[in-house]
Amino acid sequence: MATPVALSTNVQTETLDLSRLVDPRSIAVIGASDRPNSLGARSVANLLDHSDFQGTPYLISRTKQSIHGLDCYQSVTDLPEAPDVAMLVVPAAQTLQVLEDCAGRGVRYAIVFTSGFGEMGEEGKRAEQEMARIGRESGMRIYGPNSPGLCNLNKRLGMMFSPSFQIDQLPGPIGLATQGGGIGRCFLQAMERGVGVGLWASTGNEVDLTVADFMRYMADADDIEVIATTMEGIKDGPKFVEAALYAAERGKPVVALKVGRSEYGARAVASHTGSLSGAAEVNSAVLRQAGVVEVDDMDELIDTAALFARKRPTGGERVAIYGFSGGGCALTADAVGEAGLELTAFSEQTLAAIGSVLPDYAAITNPVDATSDILARPEIGHESLKQVAEDPGAGVVLYPFPCDYGELTGQIGESIAQVQRETDTPIVPIWMSDRLGEGYDALVKGGLVPVRSIKRGTKALSRWIERGRWSVDPDWSPLPAGRTGGDLVTFTEPAVKSFLASHGVTVPPSGRADTADKAVDVAENLGYPVVMKIVNSQITHKSDMGGVEVNLRSAADVRLAFDRIAAAAVAAGVTTDEVLVESMAPAGIDVLVGVTADPVFGPVMTFGLGGIFVELFNDVSRRMLPLTPAQARSLIDEPKCAALLRGLRGSGPADVEALADLMVAVSRFVETNSGRIEELELNPVRVLPAGQGVIALDAVLVMNETNGDAL
Amino acid sequence: MATPVALSTNVQTETLDLSRLVDPRSIAVIGASDRPNSLGARSVANLLDHSDFQGTPYLISRTKQSIHGLDCYQSVTDLPEAPDVAMLVVPAAQTLQVLEDCAGRGVRYAIVFTSGFGEMGEEGKRAEQEMARIGRESGMRIYGPNSPGLCNLNKRLGMMFSPSFQIDQLPGPIGLATQGGGIGRCFLQAMERGVGVGLWASTGNEVDLTVADFMRYMADADDIEVIATTMEGIKDGPKFVEAALYAAERGKPVVALKVGRSEYGARAVASHTGSLSGAAEVNSAVLRQAGVVEVDDMDELIDTAALFARKRPTGGERVAIYGFSGGGCALTADAVGEAGLELTAFSEQTLAAIGSVLPDYAAITNPVDATSDILARPEIGHESLKQVAEDPGAGVVLYPFPCDYGELTGQIGESIAQVQRETDTPIVPIWMSDRLGEGYDALVKGGLVPVRSIKRGTKALSRWIERGRWSVDPDWSPLPAGRTGGDLVTFTEPAVKSFLASHGVTVPPSGRADTADKAVDVAENLGYPVVMKIVNSQITHKSDMGGVEVNLRSAADVRLAFDRIAAAAVAAGVTTDEVLVESMAPAGIDVLVGVTADPVFGPVMTFGLGGIFVELFNDVSRRMLPLTPAQARSLIDEPKCAALLRGLRGSGPADVEALADLMVAVSRFVETNSGRIEELELNPVRVLPAGQGVIALDAVLVMNETNGDAL
Repeated sequence: MATPVALSTNVQTETLDLSRLVDPRSIAVIGASDRPNSLGARSVANLLDHSDFQGTPYLISRTKQSIHGLDCYQSVTDLPEAPDVAMLVVPAAQTLQVLEDCAGRGVRYAIVFTSGFGEMGEEGKRAEQEMARIGRESGMRIYGPNSPGLCNLNKRLGMMFSPSFQIDQLPGPIGLATQGGGIGRCFLQAMERGVGVGLWASTGNEVDLTVADFMRYMADADDIEVIATTMEGIKDGPKFVEAALYAAERGKPVVALKVGRSEYGARAVASHTGSLSGAAEVNSAVLRQAGVVEVDDMDELIDTAALFARKRPTGGERVAIYGFSGGGCALTADAVGEAGLELTAFSEQTLAAIGSVLPDYAAITNPVDATSDILARPEIGHESLKQVAEDPGAGVVLYPFPCDYGELTGQIGESIAQVQRETDTPIVPIWMSDRLGEGYDALVKGGLVPVRSIKRGTKALSRWIERGRWSVDPDWSPLPAGRTGGDLVTFTEPAVKSFLASHGVTVPPSGRADTADKAVDVAENLGYPVVMKIVNSQITHKSDMGGVEVNLRSAADVRLAFDRIAAAAVAAGVTTDEVLVESMAPAGIDVLVGVTADPVFGPVMTFGLGGIFVELFNDVSRRMLPLTPAQARSLIDEPKCAALLRGLRGSGPADVEALADLMVAVSRFVETNSGRIEELELNPVRVLPAGQGVIALDAVLVMNETNGDAL
Repeated sequence: MATPVALSTNVQTETLDLSRLVDPRSIAVIGASDRPNSLGARSVANLLDHSDFQGTPYLISRTKQSIHGLDCYQSVTDLPEAPDVAMLVVPAAQTLQVLEDCAGRGVRYAIVFTSGFGEMGEEGKRAEQEMARIGRESGMRIYGPNSPGLCNLNKRLGMMFSPSFQIDQLPGPIGLATQGGGIGRCFLQAMERGVGVGLWASTGNEVDLTVADFMRYMADADDIEVIATTMEGIKDGPKFVEAALYAAERGKPVVALKVGRSEYGARAVASHTGSLSGAAEVNSAVLRQAGVVEVDDMDELIDTAALFARKRPTGGERVAIYGFSGGGCALTADAVGEAGLELTAFSEQTLAAIGSVLPDYAAITNPVDATSDILARPEIGHESLKQVAEDPGAGVVLYPFPCDYGELTGQIGESIAQVQRETDTPIVPIWMSDRLGEGYDALVKGGLVPVRSIKRGTKALSRWIERGRWSVDPDWSPLPAGRTGGDLVTFTEPAVKSFLASHGVTVPPSGRADTADKAVDVAENLGYPVVMKIVNSQITHKSDMGGVEVNLRSAADVRLAFDRIAAAAVAAGVTTDEVLVESMAPAGIDVLVGVTADPVFGPVMTFGLGGIFVELFNDVSRRMLPLTPAQARSLIDEPKCAALLRGLRGSGPADVEALADLMVAVSRFVETNSGRIEELELNPVRVLPAGQGVIALDAVLVMNETNGDAL
């Protein structure tokens, strides 16, 4: 069923056609029942009574002859045809056997509701491995287990057991891919604010089909425009990233909530779907890199996805604020400023137009406080709001409603919905009150999806605008997942530097010496001043044990330093055959460039100023490898400490271009040794003034030994 | 009416008895009307039809003989008695005359609804000054103008014109003091979540009575337990801080939302109530110092105040999470971790008890995922939740509801409310769905005030717990406001250092010299190495112009340095008579201690590491002066860079005690020169290793000249 396709740009992997799962021609309910409130009975009711299913249903029951007027089959093996989908409403103990039967009968997709597997511990995990094997060997794709099912709301089809399916139905352009059921349903219930979902996949423990598979499907689906997702764990990081890029290329933004970002959350996730969480910072950096808009809570997921469904941002939107409460407008202006968004300055024409409509005591510069006069005269509210929305600089209008005034705010809500029908500029109402009155209803009905607090509104807006500035990097696709085996080896500094140098990284001119005399020879050849370091791959902090001597300016200095290092080695109880003698680098700014192997996303590069900037402020940026030159530049530009490299307080700019080149070279080095590098840290890298280059002053490499000479 | 009272501890200012405003015996409505929907008619209706007012109402109308069955008076001057309160429902143009009449008749409190004054510009500001004068000269207190009025909901008394008064009534323990009306009403409408407000004062443009006056009143009011406030501007910072401390001493937490924190917001505020905003960072620091819990949005104000109204925190609360959705529990655990809160570890007894009640596949360690089984069997939900709430380590329980399941969540809601009646531990339900069903209603009815998102819940919880750790510093009260006149003078470094030294601040041993020979003499006396600096109060960056020479190790060094400085002075076009020669300080950590005069709060101290830590990371802490030793220590401890002072990576701790002493000495120096210091910056202050003290290496002082020799 998996077909390899060549895409137009960078994402070159097999894709999945899930249309026969999402819109099947035949569905078997295994474990159908008519016992009231049983999962089997509910599943049948959802399919036969509450769906517009046009295909053939098959009910399979070991005890009933007929249910719901349909004859039952004893087993899936008895069916007259191989159904597209089988829904398994069977106890955990029977699940493996029934899956075998399904595979034998040629079922294309098995939806497994049953829970009690990977989330319960080792035994359950083994059962899941069996499921995966059955699927792999037969070609049958498995959805679940521990899943609430699937619903295709744009086709009004529910393959699920929850009675909520009957109620939680508002079709729409959002595709929702979750792992857990409860928070998926939370999203569906945003239909109360007018948020429509076309397809909801909730993949549970993901023995086979994953959130990433549905993102890919939704990227191609004509009825889906925006993808919202919650992930508890990501089993295959590169696959997820590719699915996100694939969606981005097709113009479909992905908004994501990662569950399990703190230690507490990760532990809770493990007991919920048995998923493992990677490091939250890496996760966030990679999502951003792939154009995925990350959010922090369910309400934010809904607000943000709904905003993308209303309009695609350009990234240049400036904000207009309009309201009838001065305090509400001022608070909104505060939040706009604090979010780093920009208020637009109205054109002269707009100012004149709204000034002629609103009373004297209204504020007409942005924010527009139209005053409570518009409650009595909604027509002037309509007229002035329309002028604001059509101002050439207004990319979006925020409209705070601090409170409900019943019929009065009802009329205002109607008039805003009317303006929205007449203009393209999105108007985002902020309904701050806990009382949801006629105005709220009018806004929901008009499709304006009111947000429920000012900060929620500006947060969604920031994310929307920021995503507008992002674009797919056509030169980039992630490295494939997977790691080869082998023992980890830590290389000596000279060895690492020589590897790096052969990949285009500048390291200090150097030589090695096993006697003081030879050290002097090397130093004389290099020219003074020099630096001398102990060579020993077991020592992680050479300076701390007295293994580094800097600023050696003469042969005498070199001899004394050699003796001190030898003594330090004895004191530290380490053996060392030789020292590394290097030219001392000119002054510059020291930074850190590191690569670590993330269990989910593979090699990830970290950049920052070293020392306390990392320790106290966590002021670093990260990117999944490989790194394009453009990505290297943005990686450098992201931390706050980047201001130092650009030149602070009269000091000139540093050689950022050379630093970006070094990062790309490091990335290539890692790519060349794909799947083998556990850790590579260049620290410090000295960045010289612009035009003078960068030098890797020290480096540590830990990698699999399997094929060391391939370096 | 203002009576000076001596309080038990530090706050020693006059207080206000506003009881005759809040609960008057007689009220005159000036501008009463029976014209439908007029402000006058609405005000009369609110007072006579929708309030339980037991006192005497007087209606004043120039055109009507009687309204609402009551005889009208032509003017306030005709009244048979001086009313406690006069509500002015008159046009702006008549307001001053009517206020004069009120004052003449002995009215105690005038409530002025009318808008169109300070918020409209200079003319309006002058009218406000007139109002203030009328009040000052007569003793009549003025509330407003540009105010929606006052409502005492615990007495069911509305002195306001809005018809919403009839609906927005849920009495309760929260006192609400706002400036703007719309956002105040937003708070009242949180009654839909069960949040009750006892008294709402909305002081508008504050020509006389301010938010701070009502905070003070509420601090003494028996029916108010928590104070919530929004301020657009604070006219008298020390008075506000004193009111907050006064409330804190009486065990009443204050929760505040400052409007006008960004430049955009400040501009909007100016056009709304004509208020001026101070610097947001200073504002936040001072609020924290006064125990005021600052929030960022209206929903946060409501959530947080409501939580304080439920229970007072100890500051040591650990969190339990309980729910029926694994995803909801995991997301909540994430948010708890990200907020820096602590999940409790249940006792063995609790674990055994919930384990025996819940099904095998439930997660029983914290978070407790009771699974959807409890939807079918609410009794096991009740039993296990009660065990969780009564676990000895559980200070608060978070209960996420990702979605509504109608009757099923209705039963759960009832059972949670029942548990809450049986236990003291607050249970905070998080109702994440946009569908508000029977469960939501049950929680509201049970007084559990559901929050509407996970992050909102953990944010309120963090603030609640953090406030529990705060306590009033009995040794502290703010310096009085006010500044004397006079021209600003910048003092030379030796002069500032000599002032500081006389106040107990250590400065380097030094001498002054006007020739190279004398400089050498001074240096020889001090001992080498020395530092030499140009003396000139006009130069702000001495180093940049070549005016500082360090590490001078001999007479020859000193002579050369003297010549270089003299040449630099010539090059920079400045005259200088002499240089300052100082002992060079030992190595240490350089910090910045500054004092600036804030227009709202008076002298405020800033502490941080200098340079890029301030520039790039804004890593500083601030306190309103004066500073107690305990405050000095917390000021030092607050920035992230404090880790450097405590000793990072094997370096020992710095002399934090001596630094705290220096800060207290600087504070005393500022206090001694109260109202005169515009700016004082000690930068750098070198902090030596523990036990070795601190040295102010450089200092700048700008102050009023009025009485310079008092230094």
